[in-house]
Amino acid sequence: MTSSDSKPEMEASSTPLQSTERGRFNMIMARSNQEHPTFQESEPLDKPMSRFQETADLNIEDVDTLNGRNRSEHKTNLIKDPYLVVRRGQPFWIDITFNKNVSNLQDFFYLKFEIGVNPQTSTGTKVVLPSDQGQMLQWDMQVLTSSGFKVSVTITPPSDCIVGRFQMTAGVPVYSRIKWISSTIKDVYILFNPWLLKDTVYMPNENERQEYVLNQRGIIYNGNPNKPVGRPWNFGQFQKGILDACLYIMDVAKMPIINRGDAIKVIRMGSAIMNSQDDRGVLVGNWSGEYGSGTAPTAWTGSPEILDKYVTKSQPVTFAQCWVYAGVFNTFLRCLGIPARVVSNFRSAHDNDGNLKIDVILTSELELDTKNTKDSLWNYHCWNECYLVRTDLPIGFGGWQVVDSTPQETSDGMYRCGPASVIAIKHGLICYPFDAKFIYAELNSDIVFRMTLMNGRLKTVFVDRSTVGKMVLTKAVGHNGQEDITHWYKFPEGTLEERMAVKNAEQYGCIRSGTSFSDVDVELDMHVPDVGLGDDFQVTLHLRNTSRSRRIVDLYLSGNVVYYTGVHSSQFKFQPLQGTLDPWKTEVATVNVHAYEYMSKIVEQRVLHFIVIGRINETERILATTQMVTLLAPKLSITVAGNHVVGESLNVTVEFTNTIRFDLVNVTIRMEISGHMVFSPKRYRLITRGSTVKWSEYYVPQAVMHTSVMASLECATLRQVYGEVELVVTDH
Amino acid sequence: MTSSDSKPEMEASSTPLQSTERGRFNMIMARSNQEHPTFQESEPLDKPMSRFQETADLNIEDVDTLNGRNRSEHKTNLIKDPYLVVRRGQPFWIDITFNKNVSNLQDFFYLKFEIGVNPQTSTGTKVVLPSDQGQMLQWDMQVLTSSGFKVSVTITPPSDCIVGRFQMTAGVPVYSRIKWISSTIKDVYILFNPWLLKDTVYMPNENERQEYVLNQRGIIYNGNPNKPVGRPWNFGQFQKGILDACLYIMDVAKMPIINRGDAIKVIRMGSAIMNSQDDRGVLVGNWSGEYGSGTAPTAWTGSPEILDKYVTKSQPVTFAQCWVYAGVFNTFLRCLGIPARVVSNFRSAHDNDGNLKIDVILTSELELDTKNTKDSLWNYHCWNECYLVRTDLPIGFGGWQVVDSTPQETSDGMYRCGPASVIAIKHGLICYPFDAKFIYAELNSDIVFRMTLMNGRLKTVFVDRSTVGKMVLTKAVGHNGQEDITHWYKFPEGTLEERMAVKNAEQYGCIRSGTSFSDVDVELDMHVPDVGLGDDFQVTLHLRNTSRSRRIVDLYLSGNVVYYTGVHSSQFKFQPLQGTLDPWKTEVATVNVHAYEYMSKIVEQRVLHFIVIGRINETERILATTQMVTLLAPKLSITVAGNHVVGESLNVTVEFTNTIRFDLVNVTIRMEISGHMVFSPKRYRLITRGSTVKWSEYYVPQAVMHTSVMASLECATLRQVYGEVELVVTDH
Repeated sequence: MTSSDSKPEMEASSTPLQSTERGRFNMIMARSNQEHPTFQESEPLDKPMSRFQETADLNIEDVDTLNGRNRSEHKTNLIKDPYLVVRRGQPFWIDITFNKNVSNLQDFFYLKFEIGVNPQTSTGTKVVLPSDQGQMLQWDMQVLTSSGFKVSVTITPPSDCIVGRFQMTAGVPVYSRIKWISSTIKDVYILFNPWLLKDTVYMPNENERQEYVLNQRGIIYNGNPNKPVGRPWNFGQFQKGILDACLYIMDVAKMPIINRGDAIKVIRMGSAIMNSQDDRGVLVGNWSGEYGSGTAPTAWTGSPEILDKYVTKSQPVTFAQCWVYAGVFNTFLRCLGIPARVVSNFRSAHDNDGNLKIDVILTSELELDTKNTKDSLWNYHCWNECYLVRTDLPIGFGGWQVVDSTPQETSDGMYRCGPASVIAIKHGLICYPFDAKFIYAELNSDIVFRMTLMNGRLKTVFVDRSTVGKMVLTKAVGHNGQEDITHWYKFPEGTLEERMAVKNAEQYGCIRSGTSFSDVDVELDMHVPDVGLGDDFQVTLHLRNTSRSRRIVDLYLSGNVVYYTGVHSSQFKFQPLQGTLDPWKTEVATVNVHAYEYMSKIVEQRVLHFIVIGRINETERILATTQMVTLLAPKLSITVAGNHVVGESLNVTVEFTNTIRFDLVNVTIRMEISGHMVFSPKRYRLITRGSTVKWSEYYVPQAVMHTSVMASLECATLRQVYGEVELVVTDH
Repeated sequence: MTSSDSKPEMEASSTPLQSTERGRFNMIMARSNQEHPTFQESEPLDKPMSRFQETADLNIEDVDTLNGRNRSEHKTNLIKDPYLVVRRGQPFWIDITFNKNVSNLQDFFYLKFEIGVNPQTSTGTKVVLPSDQGQMLQWDMQVLTSSGFKVSVTITPPSDCIVGRFQMTAGVPVYSRIKWISSTIKDVYILFNPWLLKDTVYMPNENERQEYVLNQRGIIYNGNPNKPVGRPWNFGQFQKGILDACLYIMDVAKMPIINRGDAIKVIRMGSAIMNSQDDRGVLVGNWSGEYGSGTAPTAWTGSPEILDKYVTKSQPVTFAQCWVYAGVFNTFLRCLGIPARVVSNFRSAHDNDGNLKIDVILTSELELDTKNTKDSLWNYHCWNECYLVRTDLPIGFGGWQVVDSTPQETSDGMYRCGPASVIAIKHGLICYPFDAKFIYAELNSDIVFRMTLMNGRLKTVFVDRSTVGKMVLTKAVGHNGQEDITHWYKFPEGTLEERMAVKNAEQYGCIRSGTSFSDVDVELDMHVPDVGLGDDFQVTLHLRNTSRSRRIVDLYLSGNVVYYTGVHSSQFKFQPLQGTLDPWKTEVATVNVHAYEYMSKIVEQRVLHFIVIGRINETERILATTQMVTLLAPKLSITVAGNHVVGESLNVTVEFTNTIRFDLVNVTIRMEISGHMVFSPKRYRLITRGSTVKWSEYYVPQAVMHTSVMASLECATLRQVYGEVELVVTDH
């Protein structure tokens, strides 16, 4: 990994101390882990040797970092790079070979750990460990055994140690100085340690650690709350080059080295640097549907390809939407050792001024006024959760923390969000940092229908309190099922606890609409069935008169194509209806929707949004309901033929049948064996309706593996089509 | 005020909706108050006229904004610009003259208020007020009287109204449309309203409002806690062009218009944009002592000159240190109507990793190791306080809030800090946003002396718990004296409340050094007298043996020249001493300091830092104490001769006698009549020791005024020299 060809503005080097700051700072603050400490031939012993005289003939021939043993004990053996990678607060082994017999342990030697330029003991960026030390406050070195020319020691970095790449050097005393031996220099990567009780990222449950730290594959949920769809994602946090990429990301963010042991700071920095706003971060957002100058957000199958690109090209990668940000951020967090997961909030409110209302503006004719409807309701929104102790908050707010790297509008000056305590959000205690109020609104807003009166005055005519934050999902621990974690974020509707949480939130400025509409005596429900892309279907409306009088209701159904962000693209249907309801009676109305009505207007992710607004003639009261539906797309089917044995050829085939009633043009299919092989994408100029395409590749596995084959299909009218199949290759 | 010649990167215009965001947002979000709404000839009436028919012949001839009356009632009459400036939530008067008799009030008319491009009713950036309205939710218009061709109305903007420049247009109905009359367009500036109970910036006490909102002059304290020096500062928030400059600053920060009614957001944005880091803000920091490419921070006498420069040149102004940032920020806040004051924290800890320790690193020989001492103790540090309700925090944390625009190291990604509740800081409740932890550390850190043991290990040898946050000062209300507000920030030392506050802070991660040194049985005190620059003086040390045994103490005094930030420049004196102390006895030692020792090394602000470190031979315990002293400089004396009557000539003279025992070269003297006249600076190549220079200017006042004449003197070896005298000019 190199960034020697990086453009000037991406330079991840330490900012030199500017001359204008001469009177402010004593020293340069290192902000890069790429630069090495300068090698010093020797440095003075600050205290004269007492017990024994130094021996000028002592030398160190070799330092063995025992990677196999250490990486296995530190749960870092999945990392594909060949370095020593250990977790802080936990001992690791080093064998040192001398040029003479040292079995009586009467010779001194030293190990030095340094990180960044200008390392210093007072900042924790440098530590010198002498072999004769007693109790140490911070780092600990114990000499265990010595036999012949070899000495074994264990090193334990502190449990709040800086995370990153340290340089380890061995030295011997020569005439009141330590002589450092340049041939012994080795890199030692130190990570967060969720297995260590004293670490702020400690996670008590081993199954959860396996999932949230070590699992390199995941599922990201999208679609509708009544029909969530899991999309496979290759986090690949241990693939070759990813650990270095994660350190490089902190360098681009110019994060001071001395802050890199603080999980809260690393997480908050990460949420800012994942997006390219402010700081030339990792990913460029694009919600336009036009991705010609990059890769469509729906086309990515995992994080490693993105991180490789970011490091190689030294510039932000095009393009991302929320699940791409969350997927790559999850890789970053798990790679550094912070337990993390991707969660999806269905019907996520995206409100631009941080109140608890999604305003839907209607004209005086009760039609949707898209020009004046500023807020939007995302069909789903993905963010991350990290697991850690919140040392900056009162006791009780540790555990899962929301953090969101998708650039939002109101995230306090920079594009970032969190970490915010999930427990604090649940209880409405949104006064605690960071950005809890914003996330609370995403989960708890009302949809307020406001009618425009004469000259722009707005009157609230209907409030929908139950749509937003319908469900929060994440992948289950240990298997590929889903876990509903809505109850982590919300008390059950109607309970005393829920009302108290709302009261708390109101105290901190999240005021709900106070308007009540209890005197509306007609109930309105809408049902949209599961629909395949290109199908005709029916929308069913149920109207129920709960009064003792007859009711005549004028209403209309508006069918719209929207982005997954809920932003309106175009209206494809508008149908007025009238219902006459006898007392206590229910009427059913159906509206036919034809494929030709919506197919020419469809945008990626295939979301339709139906709005029904009605007015009761007798009482002038307003009824309203909305429904989003994601049209189902055909799947890719993947098969693997062959013996599934190391060294023997596999035949991997992806197959796609265009079951849609339209032709597809300019189609790209991508296929990869997660963590092992990315095939060149395959392009098709035309796939006519009803036809099938098949693409096969041969692959010879070089090692035992437990991974998956993933494929995705992209074209301008059909995105978010993918498939996955498990792949296990054994020795025999 | 214009920015037509601004450079591209400073353009304060609204960012157009990027094409990549088409699927995310419905509309452009206005971020500039410079751009006007597009004039619309007419717009439809959303509801047909009912009571009366529109009359095609009705027209509006004139709209009178009654500036005299309104500005007086809204306390905006000090503003030198000719606009209508009012405060939100409070009615203002408008007279409208028609082309016909309207005394029976049967004709409709409309007033429209708009701000920014693309104004919209749903975001509060547009409101249309009809003359026949009943109760309004937000803005209110009342028709009061009509006689002949004239109608008088009052307008009341809501108490949470967006702050900035609105455009007001009048219109009449013509055939189911409103015809807007372009000749009636007027600017109406709306500010925060500390006089209004419902406003978040409400301040109950009238004397305090007079001081913290309306007073254009102030005093900023510097120097030492035992001898604070007040420096006059011209805030000049109502001078010509300043209000427009403050709106321009929000435009440069690209602050969304719809957020500009939220005082917390305006304040936090302000703390980021006052410094040029991140965002090409107002001021460039420089602590180097070399200011050739700009104005020395000590040379400024007030904010208006800086803000004028910023707007005219459209680029950050050079140079600032903390009191300049605080002075200009105070102008911004008071100008917009947010009560604000500048406060000085003496012995302000500037710690780079947010713990509660200022580490002083000593070598194993007990000498100061400047190379490894990273933290610094600022002799004083200036920040601002704002007065407002914290709607985002639990009840009880409103009132004064700390906000700091001097760029610091650890302010969460961007260079800004606060607002943080003073009450929360006092009680150690530093978990509440924003940046309370950082400010708590500035006030409550320990100075920890750490000795370097063999190979870089550090041992704490002495902890000074009483130096940091020694005193917090601000200008008193209603007169030019000082007010000690330390008790707002800290409980008295040794009380139960203080210990509880420390416990709270520890809970949120501010851990104090636990080491206790109760077994040190020799007490050490140092006394440095008031010293003039260029004087010889004596430092006195008191050593008191509190044990029943004899004690021999080896110690040394180190005299250093430092910046006001505590950053070390050079050592000018090093003197070892030895004391022999009989049981229960006190010894006094004196050290002579000669002017020739320090004068060649002195840096601006003339701060000397004395460190005394000692070791008790019998117990090996360490003693330590430090003392900063600011050398006194000669003052400028200012006299005003003449009649002090409008239209008659005044003779203004500034006089300086070089009482220092050295010659001064390349001296600049500045003089201004605050808010009225800035004279061209006067330069002197040489002012020999003992000599006096005198500079007179004539000035003929054009209006009644109550202001001051201020002067400052600058040269490379002598800065922070100034003088001020009151100037009252009457009608006769």
